[in-house]
Amino acid sequence: MLESDHDARWGEGCGVFGIFGHPDAARLTYYGLFALQHRGQESAGIATSDRGEIRHLKGMGLVADVFTPDNLSRLPGNIAIGHVRYSTTGRSLIENAQPLVVRYRGGMLAVAHNGNLTNALQMRQELAARGAVFQTTTDTEMVAHLAARYAGADGHKDVVAAIRRAFQDVQGAYAMVLMTEDRLIGVRDPHGIRPLSLGRLGDAWVLASESCAFDAIGAEMVRDVAPGEMVVVDRAGLHSLAVAPAARPALCLFEFVYLARPDSNLAGVNVHMARKALGRRLARDWPVEADLVAGVPDSGIAAAAGYAEEAGIPYEVALVKNRYIGRTFIQPTESDRLEALHVKLNALRKVVDGKRVVLVDDSIVRGVTSRHTVRLLRAAGAQEVHLRISSAPYRWPCFYGIDTSRASELVAVGHSIREIEQMVEADSVRYLSVEAMAEAVGLPLSSLCHACFSGEYPVPVDPAQAKEVFEYH
Amino acid sequence: MLESDHDARWGEGCGVFGIFGHPDAARLTYYGLFALQHRGQESAGIATSDRGEIRHLKGMGLVADVFTPDNLSRLPGNIAIGHVRYSTTGRSLIENAQPLVVRYRGGMLAVAHNGNLTNALQMRQELAARGAVFQTTTDTEMVAHLAARYAGADGHKDVVAAIRRAFQDVQGAYAMVLMTEDRLIGVRDPHGIRPLSLGRLGDAWVLASESCAFDAIGAEMVRDVAPGEMVVVDRAGLHSLAVAPAARPALCLFEFVYLARPDSNLAGVNVHMARKALGRRLARDWPVEADLVAGVPDSGIAAAAGYAEEAGIPYEVALVKNRYIGRTFIQPTESDRLEALHVKLNALRKVVDGKRVVLVDDSIVRGVTSRHTVRLLRAAGAQEVHLRISSAPYRWPCFYGIDTSRASELVAVGHSIREIEQMVEADSVRYLSVEAMAEAVGLPLSSLCHACFSGEYPVPVDPAQAKEVFEYH
Amino acid sequence: MLESDHDARWGEGCGVFGIFGHPDAARLTYYGLFALQHRGQESAGIATSDRGEIRHLKGMGLVADVFTPDNLSRLPGNIAIGHVRYSTTGRSLIENAQPLVVRYRGGMLAVAHNGNLTNALQMRQELAARGAVFQTTTDTEMVAHLAARYAGADGHKDVVAAIRRAFQDVQGAYAMVLMTEDRLIGVRDPHGIRPLSLGRLGDAWVLASESCAFDAIGAEMVRDVAPGEMVVVDRAGLHSLAVAPAARPALCLFEFVYLARPDSNLAGVNVHMARKALGRRLARDWPVEADLVAGVPDSGIAAAAGYAEEAGIPYEVALVKNRYIGRTFIQPTESDRLEALHVKLNALRKVVDGKRVVLVDDSIVRGVTSRHTVRLLRAAGAQEVHLRISSAPYRWPCFYGIDTSRASELVAVGHSIREIEQMVEADSVRYLSVEAMAEAVGLPLSSLCHACFSGEYPVPVDPAQAKEVFEYH
Amino acid sequence: MLESDHDARWGEGCGVFGIFGHPDAARLTYYGLFALQHRGQESAGIATSDRGEIRHLKGMGLVADVFTPDNLSRLPGNIAIGHVRYSTTGRSLIENAQPLVVRYRGGMLAVAHNGNLTNALQMRQELAARGAVFQTTTDTEMVAHLAARYAGADGHKDVVAAIRRAFQDVQGAYAMVLMTEDRLIGVRDPHGIRPLSLGRLGDAWVLASESCAFDAIGAEMVRDVAPGEMVVVDRAGLHSLAVAPAARPALCLFEFVYLARPDSNLAGVNVHMARKALGRRLARDWPVEADLVAGVPDSGIAAAAGYAEEAGIPYEVALVKNRYIGRTFIQPTESDRLEALHVKLNALRKVVDGKRVVLVDDSIVRGVTSRHTVRLLRAAGAQEVHLRISSAPYRWPCFYGIDTSRASELVAVGHSIREIEQMVEADSVRYLSVEAMAEAVGLPLSSLCHACFSGEYPVPVDPAQAKEVFEYH
Repeated sequence: MLESDHDARWGEGCGVFGIFGHPDAARLTYYGLFALQHRGQESAGIATSDRGEIRHLKGMGLVADVFTPDNLSRLPGNIAIGHVRYSTTGRSLIENAQPLVVRYRGGMLAVAHNGNLTNALQMRQELAARGAVFQTTTDTEMVAHLAARYAGADGHKDVVAAIRRAFQDVQGAYAMVLMTEDRLIGVRDPHGIRPLSLGRLGDAWVLASESCAFDAIGAEMVRDVAPGEMVVVDRAGLHSLAVAPAARPALCLFEFVYLARPDSNLAGVNVHMARKALGRRLARDWPVEADLVAGVPDSGIAAAAGYAEEAGIPYEVALVKNRYIGRTFIQPTESDRLEALHVKLNALRKVVDGKRVVLVDDSIVRGVTSRHTVRLLRAAGAQEVHLRISSAPYRWPCFYGIDTSRASELVAVGHSIREIEQMVEADSVRYLSVEAMAEAVGLPLSSLCHACFSGEYPVPVDPAQAKEVFEYH
Repeated sequence: MLESDHDARWGEGCGVFGIFGHPDAARLTYYGLFALQHRGQESAGIATSDRGEIRHLKGMGLVADVFTPDNLSRLPGNIAIGHVRYSTTGRSLIENAQPLVVRYRGGMLAVAHNGNLTNALQMRQELAARGAVFQTTTDTEMVAHLAARYAGADGHKDVVAAIRRAFQDVQGAYAMVLMTEDRLIGVRDPHGIRPLSLGRLGDAWVLASESCAFDAIGAEMVRDVAPGEMVVVDRAGLHSLAVAPAARPALCLFEFVYLARPDSNLAGVNVHMARKALGRRLARDWPVEADLVAGVPDSGIAAAAGYAEEAGIPYEVALVKNRYIGRTFIQPTESDRLEALHVKLNALRKVVDGKRVVLVDDSIVRGVTSRHTVRLLRAAGAQEVHLRISSAPYRWPCFYGIDTSRASELVAVGHSIREIEQMVEADSVRYLSVEAMAEAVGLPLSSLCHACFSGEYPVPVDPAQAKEVFEYH
Repeated sequence: MLESDHDARWGEGCGVFGIFGHPDAARLTYYGLFALQHRGQESAGIATSDRGEIRHLKGMGLVADVFTPDNLSRLPGNIAIGHVRYSTTGRSLIENAQPLVVRYRGGMLAVAHNGNLTNALQMRQELAARGAVFQTTTDTEMVAHLAARYAGADGHKDVVAAIRRAFQDVQGAYAMVLMTEDRLIGVRDPHGIRPLSLGRLGDAWVLASESCAFDAIGAEMVRDVAPGEMVVVDRAGLHSLAVAPAARPALCLFEFVYLARPDSNLAGVNVHMARKALGRRLARDWPVEADLVAGVPDSGIAAAAGYAEEAGIPYEVALVKNRYIGRTFIQPTESDRLEALHVKLNALRKVVDGKRVVLVDDSIVRGVTSRHTVRLLRAAGAQEVHLRISSAPYRWPCFYGIDTSRASELVAVGHSIREIEQMVEADSVRYLSVEAMAEAVGLPLSSLCHACFSGEYPVPVDPAQAKEVFEYH
Repeated sequence: MLESDHDARWGEGCGVFGIFGHPDAARLTYYGLFALQHRGQESAGIATSDRGEIRHLKGMGLVADVFTPDNLSRLPGNIAIGHVRYSTTGRSLIENAQPLVVRYRGGMLAVAHNGNLTNALQMRQELAARGAVFQTTTDTEMVAHLAARYAGADGHKDVVAAIRRAFQDVQGAYAMVLMTEDRLIGVRDPHGIRPLSLGRLGDAWVLASESCAFDAIGAEMVRDVAPGEMVVVDRAGLHSLAVAPAARPALCLFEFVYLARPDSNLAGVNVHMARKALGRRLARDWPVEADLVAGVPDSGIAAAAGYAEEAGIPYEVALVKNRYIGRTFIQPTESDRLEALHVKLNALRKVVDGKRVVLVDDSIVRGVTSRHTVRLLRAAGAQEVHLRISSAPYRWPCFYGIDTSRASELVAVGHSIREIEQMVEADSVRYLSVEAMAEAVGLPLSSLCHACFSGEYPVPVDPAQAKEVFEYH
């Protein structure tokens, strides 16, 4: 379970939500974003359309901090889209919060984006060469500019055609919801790298990054938006268009490992079940003699339970996490002479004392937290600590919407398993292979994006642009 | 694991902390209170003593919201005490936040209290009759008044003697830490109803409601403060005094069920282990044919794991909780026509669909949440839902520091098991007996307070006062 | 006009307000305090009585910052008292904000105080010796303790008698409003040092530090509360009692110079008219050849106008003050290399260039601001600057409710007029005599307190206590 | 003195500031904006340029509320521009706050604008037709778009040429400061309707809407930026370019009446002196037998003093204003039954009782406040109240940057002097003529914009656009 975690180790991408045809559109979007909060905690925004006017409200912080009954009531209308965003600190500006709302010759347009456009820099330069001005540093603004340019030009008489045309210019990973004065639109990139699902609540249509948002508002999952598909909802109903020719599907494998919420289903696979299956496979591939299996809260718990089941070793709660850690928490620093503090995580001595422990986690970033956790268990008396990771080594930067700005610090880059064992001070460290991951999840490896593990990028990334990705996202 | 829960079903009592002899006294108290945050989220306060002057800072809200690096730096000194408080809404006043700091003829005194004085009303009347004025509605203020009266009078030449004398006048359940300009004092009531432990960090002495606060700051547990004991720490070291003749020990049994943090040890028993043992006993006493065992997050998880182990039925995660629910969350209301929202809790359909589920929780308050949870599971396809409670029916108000202001609404009062089954819409509901609880926890029933289950109150409560308890606490 | 000034040079005392018999008691108190805001900007508070229960709300900051429509609505009742407070930084604690509300054997009591009790320390010691505890460092708490002690004791059967008895124990300067569950009480010390007036709004009775608060709510001034008088308002109407034998009246002369609002009338004298008269007298006593007369905004404006009229020299606006200076303003510092900033005050070059200026101010504290102002005028081209002060040299600390904690820094202490001229860099500096001040104001010198100018204290101050006054107030 | 007034009756325009070549650029801009705060209180913003990167910070509220030492320190660089903005409530969005900062092909550009572009709607449509998108509803965004389009196109090789070219497309009233990565630019429209001055602080160049901002930071006034002039400051120094052919100068006459600060000099005329001269002329043109002359605080004070001098009637303070009125003040409402409240303004009975009063104000908007003030004086005993207005009747909407969204409510529209007298309940009401105003100010009428009084607009306004002006500005 990762949905709780202010202390997120991976910069998540973003979460998007949209609804068409409900009198409580803003309020339902609030609850939908709330269910997607784990995908981004830096900013939140909602835009609604009412009688030809699009209003929006955005703010830094959590959904529940940005919105109040009072300000929600000032977002009337029965169409709405919303966004939660994660961002690196440097570019954590209110200007970059979404939905982005613009006025152009065709009227108004609101855009909310999860993903990353790999040709954003090039598009930016082309648009700038024609005299465009940019007020954000997001790739999302490119889509608005392209749609505005095509609207009314090149024979595109209507907004939908213009937006569709715009998507032919963009490359990369994207799951977007857009709103005009009278339409809700959802688009997914040709590989379907980032998830986007379609749901139904009575007569209303709903779009969301993950199906858990449908459950939150009592809507029913209809299906995933298909890779390369653009769904348009207007008063006449739902229309399905193609924005690009078919490409091999490449759903992000890391969504199953870490990003998505356990109660979401992606490509028909339940995320919690996938995590347990990853743990079971881990037990088969990397067994070890031990007295108990424990998970690192919250992200390693499900895989640990799977490992324990498969291995026939008792599953135990060995670590307790303090859930009150938030943004305002005062971190202990070395200069405080308080290094020994165990405020965030504590070990249960009565559980681990004298025991051989299998510690399961979903991934290792820099290894510092893992080492801290291993030390914590040893200090509580653990005889052995065997670290088992329910994914392959994370070695390559993601150019498709996950912040890996600290990619150079990834412990799996340039270190052997033996070296990692020494660095995290574990008796052994073992990872899954990418093939084993795909089998455990139950989807063909060929239908998944595993670039962060394998370096095989489904959408080409120009090295020069790669640098900009870090700068601009 | 209950430590996370803003959405607390039971009004917890309070948490206290104290430290003597550390240059970072305020900062360590901050971390100590942080570890005790689960005991009270309404207000937080820290008082420190520096060169004969006691300073304090209190505020409404969480520890991390009240304190900042800036304001902590204005609390110098190497002695400190702290407090986190829960309170019913009506009396949720900043005036009632603790530590209470007073000036009196002997100097200054700071008091932080967990518990409830059963003769508070009578003491209040007696003190008032002598002309005392009160600025709070807490029983804690009584202790300050009594200590002030005895200081310098009745032959009590020193503060410690006056405070000790004061405690001979009070009855009820209390675990208190007090601070004079140059001393740290801890007192526990003769029955030891509320917990209080003594720890050591280098040369510094530490007091805390639960041992998890020692782990948080890297301190070591030394021992529990004994029932009826008063420990005094000054420059000469630690002194142990008796405040009252020996009485039968009666540690609160509900601490093991719900109140304490799983990584704390009370009376030598680890709380998490106790909860698993309660679950195992539940499986032995109330077995049922089922396909899986699930716990209500977070408080029922440990007992569910114990039940599953003992019953040989797979333990599963069937419910996912949204951890971003906080004070600012906008609750859906019936007038929103959004009753079907599952924002706080969601069920995993792929786990429970078509299955017979044993659902384990630690207790039932009004039954409304339990019914909601049962319905959630059935909507996700559960064939049967058997509710197993890892404690006895909670039927009696607590007069010893737990807010049971909604006592009249307790579902176990005046309803048979059959009726409760119907109310919560479960296929079956079963509780543990008090005797079974004590055996599972591993402490003699005669050494525990189980009044909330049995109505057997270790300290007599005058019915007339009982009413006031609700009013004043 | 001084009512505007966040940048107050003198620590004002406090302002008190009370109303009995109006359904909008809290809201009218809000407006009353608003009119008295110039008397204290550190904290504000209102207490109301409704059906036997006294509620209160206090906060740091301005009246308009502390109260909202929402929180005012939670102060029901048709009796209310309020308080605005100034305090030195060190003791600027929310605990010391008023009204002080206590519970005692007679019920509840709320107290709001303007002034200073000269025997506070002694009373504190006596009360402490009997076992009293104090939660504030204010002398106001003494009155509550005394009233509580006398209530029910010594044959005082009712609260009013107890409160009246309490005032026989206190000495010093005080204008207090008190509220019991069903009464509003106003008390003024035997010398009437601090002002307190009685007004009427329809059937309701009103008390306020200054008559401007009556105008604010549309009430009519009835009369001043007499020195040594205690007025009690209950359902039967208004009752007048004596709290002490007659003493010589000694209304604070500095109220006319600086403290009170120009639209208030004290002892029948309008404050603005008094200030103009002080300026006229200044022109008669200390004429000088000049081209124009200017006042230091805001406190010197009225006297400057009087001076100009009497001298027959044109009155001019030579200085403009930036009214947006507030608490959050970032002060320029020397380390900023921005010393030349004239952000708060600016001179009108076109007015003063080449002119001989009479600059009128009400008083000089340390001389630093005066020197800055003189320099500002010279930099704008003034040929000569003659400083005229519409009061006598301020040389003695006030023990009656004005914060003169910086008394040691008063420029008039230990410096001759010649030295002051050099320090403030003026061509000449002249003050009024105390006798001239009284004549200008139009009240007998013998009926005024002029201790800050003359050192003749109407109520004796024990030097040992004097020190404590600074500490405790 | 009007600079104080939260309670502004006229929607002011905006204030702009810029500085080039000072290491404390952001901090000096803070003080400069502080001095210009009277020109706009809705939002404030500062942008700085450091090493090729432009950073900015904007917020709703006053300068002192938006900026803190902490966030100012995050605006490094030795070039800065700033803006304070007034706006009608409906469009009071953070998106519309300035400086507007954009990225375009030429780099980055920051723009701060005071005025109104009369062809904004047309430009918007043209830009939109070419595919531009807009994120604000301000005309300022047009300038950024135009500059971006011209940069690199049409043979304009450098940014300055592009910006200069852009200004040939815009019409209306504007005083703008712009900043590129390495330049500070100031532009004033061909008529010079809105003021803009150039100053010097050591080696640094400064631009500001009014000269009072120079005094605030210790800078010296150099000269006004000329109508139609564009000044460019770079490392090589100051350059002067023309953006448009010469047109008749038309400086806003209302700046002298109300908008500007008294210590500013516009076109060489001191604003305070101009106001006094307007009052003197008023006395000559519209004498009346009276006992005293009083001004409405704060905007009528200077003219009242001039009137009194000229008429030989004593000037008196008859009205006292409460300076603590701010945004958070709870307005009394009729439903409160508190209509009689005189919280904001109070009359001095001792001054006006039995007297014939000449009341001087700078203008009348709807007449409601004037009637309230006249009633206040009569209630305080005034025998006669003669209202004298130091400007001509304000009858025409301003299309050049002053918010006159309530133009339809202007009392001078469609009412005779006799009717106005009846509406405001004065014994007489008299205005100045436009010719008399110009003579008093000392500038040729032909060099001033007096459209709001005369309807003679120096820049043609298309009626269709006029409507949009209200919508979009």
